[in-house]
Formats: sequence, C-alpha cells, structure tokens
Amino acid sequence: MATYKLTLEYDGTGYCGWQVQPNGPSVQGAVESALHRLLGVEIRIRAAGRTDSGVHARGQVASFRADCPVPTNKLAEALNTRLPPDIACRKAEEAESGFDPRHDCVRKRYSYSFLVGSIRPALARRQFWHLKRPTSITAMQDAASLFVGSHDFTSFCNQERAGEDNIRTVDRSELIVHPTDDVGNTALTFVIEGRSFLYNMVRAIAGTLADVGAGRFRPEEIGALLERRERSCAGQGAPPWGLCLEWVKYPNDALD
Amino acid sequence: MATYKLTLEYDGTGYCGWQVQPNGPSVQGAVESALHRLLGVEIRIRAAGRTDSGVHARGQVASFRADCPVPTNKLAEALNTRLPPDIACRKAEEAESGFDPRHDCVRKRYSYSFLVGSIRPALARRQFWHLKRPTSITAMQDAASLFVGSHDFTSFCNQERAGEDNIRTVDRSELIVHPTDDVGNTALTFVIEGRSFLYNMVRAIAGTLADVGAGRFRPEEIGALLERRERSCAGQGAPPWGLCLEWVKYPNDALD
Repeated sequence: MATYKLTLEYDGTGYCGWQVQPNGPSVQGAVESALHRLLGVEIRIRAAGRTDSGVHARGQVASFRADCPVPTNKLAEALNTRLPPDIACRKAEEAESGFDPRHDCVRKRYSYSFLVGSIRPALARRQFWHLKRPTSITAMQDAASLFVGSHDFTSFCNQERAGEDNIRTVDRSELIVHPTDDVGNTALTFVIEGRSFLYNMVRAIAGTLADVGAGRFRPEEIGALLERRERSCAGQGAPPWGLCLEWVKYPNDALD
Repeated sequence: MATYKLTLEYDGTGYCGWQVQPNGPSVQGAVESALHRLLGVEIRIRAAGRTDSGVHARGQVASFRADCPVPTNKLAEALNTRLPPDIACRKAEEAESGFDPRHDCVRKRYSYSFLVGSIRPALARRQFWHLKRPTSITAMQDAASLFVGSHDFTSFCNQERAGEDNIRTVDRSELIVHPTDDVGNTALTFVIEGRSFLYNMVRAIAGTLADVGAGRFRPEEIGALLERRERSCAGQGAPPWGLCLEWVKYPNDALD
C-alpha cells in the first residue's frame, strides 16, 4: 500500500463542509466516493483542516492509503473525471508512509474576502462578504496586524474544549487593499497564516475586523479583547462564503 | 417622465439570456420585475446587447422611462434590494430623453476567459472554458490580432439575416496571457471591442481561437476563413459561460 497526498480546490457553496455529516453532502464524502469509483475499494481520507459549511478551498490537502493501479502522474486527472464540477484535484503525489496532513502541517494560509462599498457583488457573490456601511479600511488594516504572534485566542473561538489550551501562533495577519473600482467599491483580502487555528477562529477575527471597520471597536482594543478570553466580548462571526483555505505547507515545502 | 440608464452586472448561469423568453427566467424579466415592485407600474427596459443563455455581464447597459419617486442617487441601491443575488445594478443615472442603449452605443467590450492546462477549474468553473489538450497560446495570440479592422464576419455568425450586411469593425482583438500557476494552468482573457457584433460572433471567434490553439487551423488561415463567408468553414462555437459583456460606451464616455 502506498500513501497519497491530494491537493484539492472546491467551491464550498453546495456542501455541509469538509467532514461527512448526516445532514447533507460533504466534500470528504464526494472525494471518497470518486476514489471508490476509481479504485474499486472503499477509501477513507483525512484532511489538513475541516472546513465548515460554505467555506472554500484552493489548496486543501488530504491523504489516503491504497493499492492504486493508476500511475501517480495520471491520478489527479483520473479523479477529476469522477469528481463533481465544484471539486477539483489540483495535484496527486505519493507521500511518505505515515504522512498525516493535519499533524505534519507546518503552516496554513486562509484568506477572507470583503467587498466594501454601496454596490453588492453579483458575479463574485459566493466569494465576498459585502460590507455596505461606511467602513474604515485603515482601522481594519491596523487591527489585522495586531493578531500576529502567540496569543490565547479564546475570545476568537466558538468551541470550548476542556483540558486543551487555546494558545495559537499567528505568523502573518494582513489586510490587502485592492484598487477601488468605478463605482467606489474596494475589495479587501485578509490573509492569515499559522500552523493551526481554533474552531471558527479566522471567521471570528474577520468578523471583528468588520466591526472595527464599522467603528464598533477601535484597533487598540484588540489586545484587550484577546486578554478577556471570552468569545462574547469580541466581534461577530463572518459568514462562511468569504473564507478560503489557500494552502497547507509541510516540512519539505518552501515557505514563501 | 424621465429616462434612466442602468449599468448591470449579472451571473448568467441561471438565466435563459437577457431577453424575456417563454422557456425560462430572463435577466430582462428579473430587472423589469424588480422595477415594477419598486415603482408600482409595469416598466419595459431595453438593453445595449441581448446576451445569450449563460453569458455574464459586468457592464450591460439598459434604459427605461418612468416617473420615479426614488432619488436617482438612491436608485441603484433601492433596485439591488429587490433584484435576485445574481443580478446587481452598479449604476443608475438619468439619461437624455430618447437615449437608446443599443443604437447610441459607440463601443462595447466583451471578454472571453479560457483556462489552459490539465486541471479543470472548480471555484471559477462558471467563468472559464477549460482547454485541456495541449494548446499553442502564441498561435492563439497571433490569430486573435487578425480580427482587428472591418471585415465581413459571415463565417463567424450563426444567424442569416436577409438584406443586412455582415460587415463589422473590430477596434481591438487581443489575447491576454496571465501568469501560469503552480500546477501549470494558464488563464487567458480574449478581449474584443467594437461598436456592434453579429449574433454569436464573439463565441464563434473564441471557439476558432481554441481551434487554432489545438492546431486545427493555422493563424494565417484566419484571413481565408473570413473571405469564405460560410459559418461552417470556421471553428466551433465557444460555450457561453466564458463570455462576459464588460462595458458599453456612449458618445460622452472616455474610450480608455
């Protein structure tokens, strides 16, 4: 048996999330079903991160073990003919035996896309959270930079987990501002990188950035919000469709 | 009564095209219905170009005449609360009485998006035509440039119209090549501008460019294809989802 590493892109709109659930189609279920049809045996896959319902990925990583008759350099294309149109396998590679996409990960990047302005998006409506009210983008940029470093992120986590600490290290946290378009709309990409994140942490941070933009918090309050260690003190959760798992890196990958 | 000019963005995926049809929902019908609910009277709108089923727009222009109690600077937002999520009004302005979005137009830009490479798109699947086979991008670029100028485009038109000439003037016809991504996929944007186009002309040209990329025609044959004046001699029609009406310009607009 060999171990394989898949890099997956998906539009999360039509799924109840990564993980197999009783209440609807999952990305994991769709990929396992395509592997089953390709290889003739039931396959269980494991992912680097369990994205929530409606969340997208450009570079989710998953692994499985199998005796695979398809040559590795043909595996991605063979899988793509069996996957639904909203999921694509971008890469399929052999990995070291024992490769664990979640535990071996050294860094992940998520992006969160905002569109600030009075006109809502139509073509890109499934990838942008529209912030319609007057928004201070510079305040959002200032606040974004304050998440870098090791902090207790309890105020930005929706799940209590007894006996586990909520300290995480954020390596990059930056709001990129794109050029304003002809109707005054400005697209923003919030980029955050770290080895691991708490449940709902990126959406809680993105929602708090939106609250900073709307004037409900000042950027200088981010430190105090982190110190309070209560989810209720920080901002709203951002909706899932702005979030995308961009990539996952492992020890042998370049960190660019 | 005043005359209004609307600039509309839409995702054409869910529509049978711009024009009201018996066989499914149309963009025109959705906008007229939103205007009806906003203004309380039935409104008939006219567009610069009738986009086909599945074709998108970032800057379709439509006009209507009405007594409108909503201030003009609030009209786009008021309309957006009544339009479905896949249609947005980007601008609403008062126009001169007699403004005709189709006849007054001095230039339109369409884009056609290709993704060349072995991996199909998932997130952007509704905006890109995936060309999977080995494709000569430089041959496509060479061929694209040959459509500039005044030509009889009968070979690139799907509709016979008795008594009308098929001569059109193309002001710009260019294939823009984007950077190749980490799995070897290259996105291409074919940009074409002119005052007016024949029925299906942009998709016939885009499909012929794909045929050139696949080696079914050489770029030097474009001139001969134009001279033949037979639809059957030129290439395949490209699928609708790669096509987008980018903008429509009028005499007072800057041509950038």
